[in-house]
Amino acid sequence: MTSSFEVLQKQLKRLPGVGYRSAERMAIHLLLEKPDAATSLVNAIVDAQKRVRSCSVCGNICEEERCGICEDARRSASGVICVVEHVSDILALEKSGAYGGLYHALHGKLSPINGVGPENLNIDALVKRVDGGDVREVILALPNDIEGEATCHYITDLFEGKDVSVSRIGFGLPSGGSVLYADQVTLKSALEARKSF
Amino acid sequence: MTSSFEVLQKQLKRLPGVGYRSAERMAIHLLLEKPDAATSLVNAIVDAQKRVRSCSVCGNICEEERCGICEDARRSASGVICVVEHVSDILALEKSGAYGGLYHALHGKLSPINGVGPENLNIDALVKRVDGGDVREVILALPNDIEGEATCHYITDLFEGKDVSVSRIGFGLPSGGSVLYADQVTLKSALEARKSF
Repeated sequence: MTSSFEVLQKQLKRLPGVGYRSAERMAIHLLLEKPDAATSLVNAIVDAQKRVRSCSVCGNICEEERCGICEDARRSASGVICVVEHVSDILALEKSGAYGGLYHALHGKLSPINGVGPENLNIDALVKRVDGGDVREVILALPNDIEGEATCHYITDLFEGKDVSVSRIGFGLPSGGSVLYADQVTLKSALEARKSF
Repeated sequence: MTSSFEVLQKQLKRLPGVGYRSAERMAIHLLLEKPDAATSLVNAIVDAQKRVRSCSVCGNICEEERCGICEDARRSASGVICVVEHVSDILALEKSGAYGGLYHALHGKLSPINGVGPENLNIDALVKRVDGGDVREVILALPNDIEGEATCHYITDLFEGKDVSVSRIGFGLPSGGSVLYADQVTLKSALEARKSF
């Protein structure tokens, strides 16, 4: 075991979802099995670091001043902003094809226990967008947990009395889900979100 | 979605155990959430690429001409070589503390279906080590599957008639394992490997 190997393993372990053993396997893969993959990865990171930035309007990932979604006149005309926790949520919603409006990434959720307050989130920019007019609805697509709930309440309070409707995405059984295997929180959400036939 | 982002995602997806979604999450993490982690990772890869190489004797990962295990006089004196598929297997065996001899990494196993023949593996160097003398036992610690089995047979044939004993590590129930949850191949191996009390 060598020191530069351990440094690389430690850096790989910092990636989300990577543990000690996976990092070890990745380091060996990059150094011994596929040295060309290591070079390609380095080039890809360096290149993307240079080009990629946050959209100045919504916080989405892009290579220009504003992202393709914000630049889309049809989507801007919708007057609907879907607020998400992370940029990856935008990618997931886009893949679903279920939404045709604008987005706003908070880059996190309120979490006092982790020292994350409103000032650490991309909330001011959201308020400015709504105050700028042309926004008729804000859809909160934040996680179904305590911190997501708190963030929703905080944002809803901000828009109290303003000419914009605030909604939150529905919670309940996922597609293909059955009551038998659903966890308690999901069942509670599903019961509360019941609709009359 | 931007092109340099997609390139990075594709390169991350080449890492072992990383799928499309994990690669996306890692790319966002590196580019938006922890830009300093991206720089540290690039430096770690570039640095390790420069320093790390294969041990000229056993194929283990190291920063010198020969790895620490091959340089250890006590281990060399044991005259035992444990043959493994990958360098990561050496790390795992070292962590177990169950073995005090030398190693030899094949960097793969025979797999005609994937075009891996003896010439693609680090086998010639193993034969040279054994022919060089001072080796009294070769322990094959290769996987308990068809390809591992074939590789073991191939190596055993190479040493037929030479003054070295060849053994293969035991197979059976893992520690904490129960017959109820063991798969068929494991149970077959365990029955075959039975010992009289």
